[in-house]
Amino acid sequence: MTVTAVTRIGSVSRWQPNARGRLRQAAFELYGEHGFDQTTVAQIAERAGLTERTFYRHFTDKREVVFSGEVQRVLVSTLADSPTGMTAMEAVTAALTAAGAVLDERRELTRRRQAVIAANPRLQQREQMKYATLAADMAEALRGRGVEPSSAQLAADAGVAVFRAAFERWIDEHEHRDFDRLVRATLDELAAVISG
Amino acid sequence: MTVTAVTRIGSVSRWQPNARGRLRQAAFELYGEHGFDQTTVAQIAERAGLTERTFYRHFTDKREVVFSGEVQRVLVSTLADSPTGMTAMEAVTAALTAAGAVLDERRELTRRRQAVIAANPRLQQREQMKYATLAADMAEALRGRGVEPSSAQLAADAGVAVFRAAFERWIDEHEHRDFDRLVRATLDELAAVISG
Repeated sequence: MTVTAVTRIGSVSRWQPNARGRLRQAAFELYGEHGFDQTTVAQIAERAGLTERTFYRHFTDKREVVFSGEVQRVLVSTLADSPTGMTAMEAVTAALTAAGAVLDERRELTRRRQAVIAANPRLQQREQMKYATLAADMAEALRGRGVEPSSAQLAADAGVAVFRAAFERWIDEHEHRDFDRLVRATLDELAAVISG
Repeated sequence: MTVTAVTRIGSVSRWQPNARGRLRQAAFELYGEHGFDQTTVAQIAERAGLTERTFYRHFTDKREVVFSGEVQRVLVSTLADSPTGMTAMEAVTAALTAAGAVLDERRELTRRRQAVIAANPRLQQREQMKYATLAADMAEALRGRGVEPSSAQLAADAGVAVFRAAFERWIDEHEHRDFDRLVRATLDELAAVISG
């Protein structure tokens, strides 16, 4: 278990092993049991066996547990750092593969997360906005690599479309293939649809 | 000039020639001059030389003037009614062409509309949500034509990406080509990006 946080209670210093992971686990349990709107930060901290102060050291609020943005950061940074010899779409594919490695490690938690979002219209709206921001950020990363603006936007939009379609398959409880394999199948399907 | 509305003031019945168009024109003038948030329905009606009652006969509120959804309706209905022999992407292209015919008739008004949206973060957010809804509605229309769900979603997402890219070019004041020509150029660019 990795040690990720130190909590100071009074003058006593205590290590909190993987506090962030425990808080996230507790939050998704409670969101699933009582609904997102009905869950408080106090309840999340209690379920995780931690203090509210520790919660706020890791997350701004209870919504940030759902939208931590880690997958988005991996997508955008991989895109920005991709070798210059790659075409825009090769760089997008590499970014989707890198994001898949993060996702595959937390498949059960992500399924739980999606169930929470599906049950709450405001969270769904927030997720839509995150995808719009992701497409804009990916386009910017591609422009930073010298890709012409309109091609950068189209490659980013295509990348987000493939991400979402692959994600929808991957999240299904009967689906066992890795994210990366689903990305490649979806890319082929998109190419066939476009040329069809 | 087309006659589109009748307003009753007391017992007197008066024809309002193109009331909807006059209200829209007045609204975008005022949104541009004072900002969207600062403009009231009373001011819009006054500028148009009409009553507030007439305004509310045409629009639910001042936001609906900006998001009337006419272009979206044309896109989705054209898609739903497209000949069964067409591939998903051919049907999407036909829908984009039909939407372009509506847009080309109101290029100046649409430019004014986009300037209003660009100046207001909440309207920008609303527009992002409209695009997400549009993609979902287009995918549903394609599924209704028998297109397999994941291909329907990918074709719809590709269609919205092309629409937005073509729209961004079309709205530029230095651009004089019709929407349809920009759609075809953008479709070619998307195909090149995907296969690149």
